[in-house]
Amino acid sequence: MPDQAHPTTADFERCRIEDGQGWEKLSVERVLDHRYIQIEEVRYRTPARKDPVDWTVARRKYAIAVAPMLPDGRFLLIHQERYPVQRALWEFPAGQIDDVDNKEDRNIILGTVHSELDEETGHQLADDGELIPLGYFFSSQGYSDEHVYLFLAKNVIATGKGPRPDAGESILGCRAVSANELSDEIANNRIVDANTLALYARLCARGLIN
Amino acid sequence: MPDQAHPTTADFERCRIEDGQGWEKLSVERVLDHRYIQIEEVRYRTPARKDPVDWTVARRKYAIAVAPMLPDGRFLLIHQERYPVQRALWEFPAGQIDDVDNKEDRNIILGTVHSELDEETGHQLADDGELIPLGYFFSSQGYSDEHVYLFLAKNVIATGKGPRPDAGESILGCRAVSANELSDEIANNRIVDANTLALYARLCARGLIN
Repeated sequence: MPDQAHPTTADFERCRIEDGQGWEKLSVERVLDHRYIQIEEVRYRTPARKDPVDWTVARRKYAIAVAPMLPDGRFLLIHQERYPVQRALWEFPAGQIDDVDNKEDRNIILGTVHSELDEETGHQLADDGELIPLGYFFSSQGYSDEHVYLFLAKNVIATGKGPRPDAGESILGCRAVSANELSDEIANNRIVDANTLALYARLCARGLIN
Repeated sequence: MPDQAHPTTADFERCRIEDGQGWEKLSVERVLDHRYIQIEEVRYRTPARKDPVDWTVARRKYAIAVAPMLPDGRFLLIHQERYPVQRALWEFPAGQIDDVDNKEDRNIILGTVHSELDEETGHQLADDGELIPLGYFFSSQGYSDEHVYLFLAKNVIATGKGPRPDAGESILGCRAVSANELSDEIANNRIVDANTLALYARLCARGLIN
């Protein structure tokens, strides 16, 4: 894994969900306290509403997703069995930030990007590589606080050790696609996950892809 | 609201999550049965794994999201307080398909698109308007089966009745942005929800936006 001091842009806008600026949690009742998800009934005071509002919220770990780009400009996609939707999907690598006590720490976030890249694709940043932050997104803001930090990993090379996914994961393969092929897969509904679509949207909007 | 027979492309690829092709749910234990979310511990047999795998899954209603385009080519965004993330976000209109018994019915899905467009923006398809399906996406396939059908509503006009959101919703405004302004908002991390980013990705990939 590359050193955390490996060249990256100086910093990135981190997402913080906290009270303030008119937002306040008046009460919180936890209805499910589970290892992977917490469900809460929350009474919010909001800046715009006269009366408080009651809402059901699913809390999740923070996460990252990364678009790995080879020196020739092609992107790496992984093929992964996704149990909740009973499909194997082609997607950009992604993973959760397990160190929940330091989930807003810059080096923890960047470290997770490097780890997922290595474990899921068997690639790492080249010496002249760069990790470019592309902001973040909320996966389903109507009920969940889950958000995902997005990155472009420019100039990745094989580690030689291959992918080494977690035991619970089922990664079936990895392939390189050109920007045109990626667009074609997205246009034709063959790439269907929020992480990859959000990364593609930011890459397009920033002119980093045709 | 326009008649459901209003001009639309003939059909669209619907998402179905079901057993078959090597997928099987060997056991399901429901650990939370809530009005808005169901949490299950599922033992899956998958096509690629030798042994079954246990996974925690959050089940949610199906949903839609729609990019409303005015006759001059600008897009409508709404500004909505999103309680779980304690922010007001600018996003394309979206909503859940409440008729869970008919959630795969074409007319129910399209009807939800027309309703959300009307209720959240106060707009409807013009006589020469068209509802163009842009596939679907999974919001967080690592833990949830939630998926969202995507549409471009081309040529929308004001109903004259204004937005009429649900009582629990907090919609603060609606504005029209050019394709360039939309790209700029996305590039600069000012649009941060999966629905809007996924719609933008499909619009870009299909060449429906510059």
